[in-house]
Amino acid sequence: MENQVNPIEMARHSLSHILAKAVCELYDDVKLAIGPAIDNGFYYDFDLPRSITTEDFDAITAKMQEILKRGEDFVCREVSADEAKAIFADQPYKLELIEGLGDERITLYYTGEDFVDLCRGPHVQNARELRSWAFKISSATGAYWRGDSTRPMLQRVYVYAFPNKQELKEYVAAVEDAKKRDHNKLGRELEYFTTVESIGQGLPILLPKGAKVIQTLQRFVEDEEARRGYTLTMTPLMAKRELYKISGHWDHYLDGMFILGDPHDETKECFALRPMTCPFQYQVYLNRPRSYRELPMRFGETSTLFRNEDSGEMHGLIRVRQFTISEGHLVLRPDQLEEEFRGCVDLAMYMLDAVGLREDCTFRFSQWDPARTDKYEGTPEQWAEAQRIMGEILDHIGINYEIGIDEAAFYGPKLDIQCKNVFGKEDTIITIQIDMLLAEKFGMEYTDREGKKVRPYIIHRTSLGCYQRTLALLIEKYAGALPFWISATQVGVVPVRPEHNEYAAKVTAALQAAGIRTEVDYEDEMMGTKVKKYRQDKVPYTVIVGDKEMAEGTVSLKIRGGAGANDVPLDIFVETCRELVNTNALTLKTEF
Amino acid sequence: MENQVNPIEMARHSLSHILAKAVCELYDDVKLAIGPAIDNGFYYDFDLPRSITTEDFDAITAKMQEILKRGEDFVCREVSADEAKAIFADQPYKLELIEGLGDERITLYYTGEDFVDLCRGPHVQNARELRSWAFKISSATGAYWRGDSTRPMLQRVYVYAFPNKQELKEYVAAVEDAKKRDHNKLGRELEYFTTVESIGQGLPILLPKGAKVIQTLQRFVEDEEARRGYTLTMTPLMAKRELYKISGHWDHYLDGMFILGDPHDETKECFALRPMTCPFQYQVYLNRPRSYRELPMRFGETSTLFRNEDSGEMHGLIRVRQFTISEGHLVLRPDQLEEEFRGCVDLAMYMLDAVGLREDCTFRFSQWDPARTDKYEGTPEQWAEAQRIMGEILDHIGINYEIGIDEAAFYGPKLDIQCKNVFGKEDTIITIQIDMLLAEKFGMEYTDREGKKVRPYIIHRTSLGCYQRTLALLIEKYAGALPFWISATQVGVVPVRPEHNEYAAKVTAALQAAGIRTEVDYEDEMMGTKVKKYRQDKVPYTVIVGDKEMAEGTVSLKIRGGAGANDVPLDIFVETCRELVNTNALTLKTEF
Repeated sequence: MENQVNPIEMARHSLSHILAKAVCELYDDVKLAIGPAIDNGFYYDFDLPRSITTEDFDAITAKMQEILKRGEDFVCREVSADEAKAIFADQPYKLELIEGLGDERITLYYTGEDFVDLCRGPHVQNARELRSWAFKISSATGAYWRGDSTRPMLQRVYVYAFPNKQELKEYVAAVEDAKKRDHNKLGRELEYFTTVESIGQGLPILLPKGAKVIQTLQRFVEDEEARRGYTLTMTPLMAKRELYKISGHWDHYLDGMFILGDPHDETKECFALRPMTCPFQYQVYLNRPRSYRELPMRFGETSTLFRNEDSGEMHGLIRVRQFTISEGHLVLRPDQLEEEFRGCVDLAMYMLDAVGLREDCTFRFSQWDPARTDKYEGTPEQWAEAQRIMGEILDHIGINYEIGIDEAAFYGPKLDIQCKNVFGKEDTIITIQIDMLLAEKFGMEYTDREGKKVRPYIIHRTSLGCYQRTLALLIEKYAGALPFWISATQVGVVPVRPEHNEYAAKVTAALQAAGIRTEVDYEDEMMGTKVKKYRQDKVPYTVIVGDKEMAEGTVSLKIRGGAGANDVPLDIFVETCRELVNTNALTLKTEF
Repeated sequence: MENQVNPIEMARHSLSHILAKAVCELYDDVKLAIGPAIDNGFYYDFDLPRSITTEDFDAITAKMQEILKRGEDFVCREVSADEAKAIFADQPYKLELIEGLGDERITLYYTGEDFVDLCRGPHVQNARELRSWAFKISSATGAYWRGDSTRPMLQRVYVYAFPNKQELKEYVAAVEDAKKRDHNKLGRELEYFTTVESIGQGLPILLPKGAKVIQTLQRFVEDEEARRGYTLTMTPLMAKRELYKISGHWDHYLDGMFILGDPHDETKECFALRPMTCPFQYQVYLNRPRSYRELPMRFGETSTLFRNEDSGEMHGLIRVRQFTISEGHLVLRPDQLEEEFRGCVDLAMYMLDAVGLREDCTFRFSQWDPARTDKYEGTPEQWAEAQRIMGEILDHIGINYEIGIDEAAFYGPKLDIQCKNVFGKEDTIITIQIDMLLAEKFGMEYTDREGKKVRPYIIHRTSLGCYQRTLALLIEKYAGALPFWISATQVGVVPVRPEHNEYAAKVTAALQAAGIRTEVDYEDEMMGTKVKKYRQDKVPYTVIVGDKEMAEGTVSLKIRGGAGANDVPLDIFVETCRELVNTNALTLKTEF
């Protein structure tokens, strides 16, 4: 049975043949590789003597339009492997693909009589059907044949393609906006973070502004957790091989860890940096015998983790080799599982609300893959039980989730809260996991009411996930203009002339005494220059103080986003700032 | 010229011969090694077939007393190497020592006619001089011959020895007290920290109580630094080999670092965990060009560091493989050096006052060793200049310091603030260093008023040093009863009976709203049992609420140390607690 044909995908795929035909008509000695449809259009990989650069885009586009006007049919022809090899005798990549097809039915698609491509189809009947479509060549980059760095480097031409001009225009505008918001660009420009070659990829340096935002988030999480009955731990960032053998990381996660020493030489001490906090935080529980009366125990830690990712995978603050996370484990009696799981979801929602990311999030119930038991600890019965319990809890709470197969942790199922970044790419921001296996491995137990030793359940969870990733998402969502309570500098103070410095100092002191992060600029520069600096820096409020303000004990404000306010009494402004912090407000107050 | 003879040392050394003679008279086949005087007495290393245990101490002591009563002379005799070898023919350790003496003048000391030791002296004239002395065998442990783990393991007998009984008694009492305060014992009992075999030595786990104390100290330091114009950074905990090559750590500190990968294989990426923050924090400065107007820049970081110490060196929270430190660097114009150095000393004093450790501290001006230029970067001229400047500043500030030769950092001289622990062992708690070399290695510069590029000076400094070590010193100083503002749990609330639970909750909420770390015990247990738990836990105030307190809106208090207070109005008690925190009070208030 054929898969259902998606008409958008079919049109994009047909346009990729038009692109290939255009390139063949324009340039000599073109070797064709592959040209699939993708989410926003299509690409085609070529091997040809000349480099395709942005300067060629207009000529290629014109040639594609010209071909479309010819109104040629897309004609399918079924051939034998030998016939196909004869037809593509001068096309080495096609020949390799034909080899790989073996006994499969081989189909070719002709566009006009002078262009043929090896292709499964389906395609439009005639190029005329594509004439309402709008497209735009977006980039030309290098790409290895079959993604293999030992094979030839080809030239990949990416094209945005949408059913009409309006949709293309909107998409291009969204991409332009996303590029401006890209934390990997904006976050560097605004001096949130940087990376340097001699330290290495995936090891970002948090500059003062980024460090202040993360400190603010960390303290917020630590304090909220304390209010919710969590106790803080600080556990080591590395351990001997022996610990990871007990936890199972040595068997299931060795490649993802940074190892100090030779992992295979059992005669010598060997340490590994931790990729997760679990086996460390369990030691806190194991420090002495526990009673049922002590449960639930909720442990929280601002925990730094290390993952040995490939260099090619690194991306800004989103995918890194070292990150810090609000990690914690709850050790529970079975009868406490649902209430505590609900508490974890509530805490996660509270955090997402506080930073304004809730609307960008979806839920995924990540399960194991029964066909890949080698990747997971525990028996099918244990997995069925854990997933049944978790499914019930999710249904009780009323969470609307998708299921992800083979997405579980090796020790249990997860509720993953997924957040889309500005490019539409989804990443996990928060995770809440049920674990019925590790307590046994570590010999964790408690004495129940009857004096019997019992295994506890464990919930692994994060409150706000990885701080580096959260900072990246916030920079992109707010295009660098973070909510007041998270802003590194919350208020910038500008005296109009040097004789206002003293009053500016008074205003600054009043704000700082209220815990508001305030800077003042006494530099001998034009007022406008100083105001502009704070604006470019996306500081929420810029306070301007001159004669009138000094005489009346007020401030005048430039408010981020464009508004202003004059003659606001200082105490009212201070109180407003304090309230914005205490309520975790996401928007600024513009009326006083 | 003979060194000046210290009569205490001479007496202890003479007593060590008496010990050796006693052991030879008591046991067969004794081989003598060495027996020097030490700070609190002396020891002697023996090789003999039987193990000396605590059960032998009385017999050895009695034999020593018996020998002393004989009133024998200590007689010196000068001999040739051959004569010496003949005399010690059956003493292999002495023979090895004689070999090592080469052409030196060899002296023997006789105690009576039947005991002789190879010895430089000097000694008392007659054993009678030692009869007023008081001594006590403190322990017998193993010790390698010449401290070399490939040589035979000997038996070392330690003896406390003081000029009279009173001094010995006082010393033994002090040792007993120190043992009770030892953070490595008390800190575990009170659940500040633990260690586990599968994680490894020198990698302590901070349990909730220790983590809360360290969180409190870290926030206090971060906030005070922010008030003093520091900006926070968060930099990666590891970097590629390349960074350490620039900084000089690769040449001067490789053995002290944890390496990920093969350090000698230059074809592969190789990371190392950082032993210091300097080269990472410099990247923040290097993020863009700097102007003289931006200086001084004061960077602070709650920084985790790793040092690959030998297993044998580990000690509780004092000597560890991973620790966290209030590390920072100030980048300065030369004209700012003295003022900023003074600021660093002031901040250090402020911190030591806040935790109450100032009285236990002394200063050391740590300089390089001109004879060991291989250990240090830079020229003799640069070192002379840096040490001259630092000496001048120290004199201007009026700091009373000792000089430590060959104690400098490899890049510059240091002011080390040394703190004695409860056993009298000195460790560095805070360090302030002047660096004129690393700015050049990293190409750091600023544009001066005339537009010229100039090298800045750098001060490396800590505010309160290593948090783990500080916690250890605090546990020992206060025998676990930490000042109110640092205590993990500041107030424990005990309702007399279940009907007082509601009022107990109100008291708890009022204290928590004021930021006071308060626990309440609703368990169905006797009041006395709950009060005892808080007392054993060294909680500063235990609040007891019953009928009278509930009726009158008051609290009754059990105050750590033994005092009590009844009928204290709740608001007064809350205000007192808040004041103890805000003033970093070191003692509790007992009158209300």
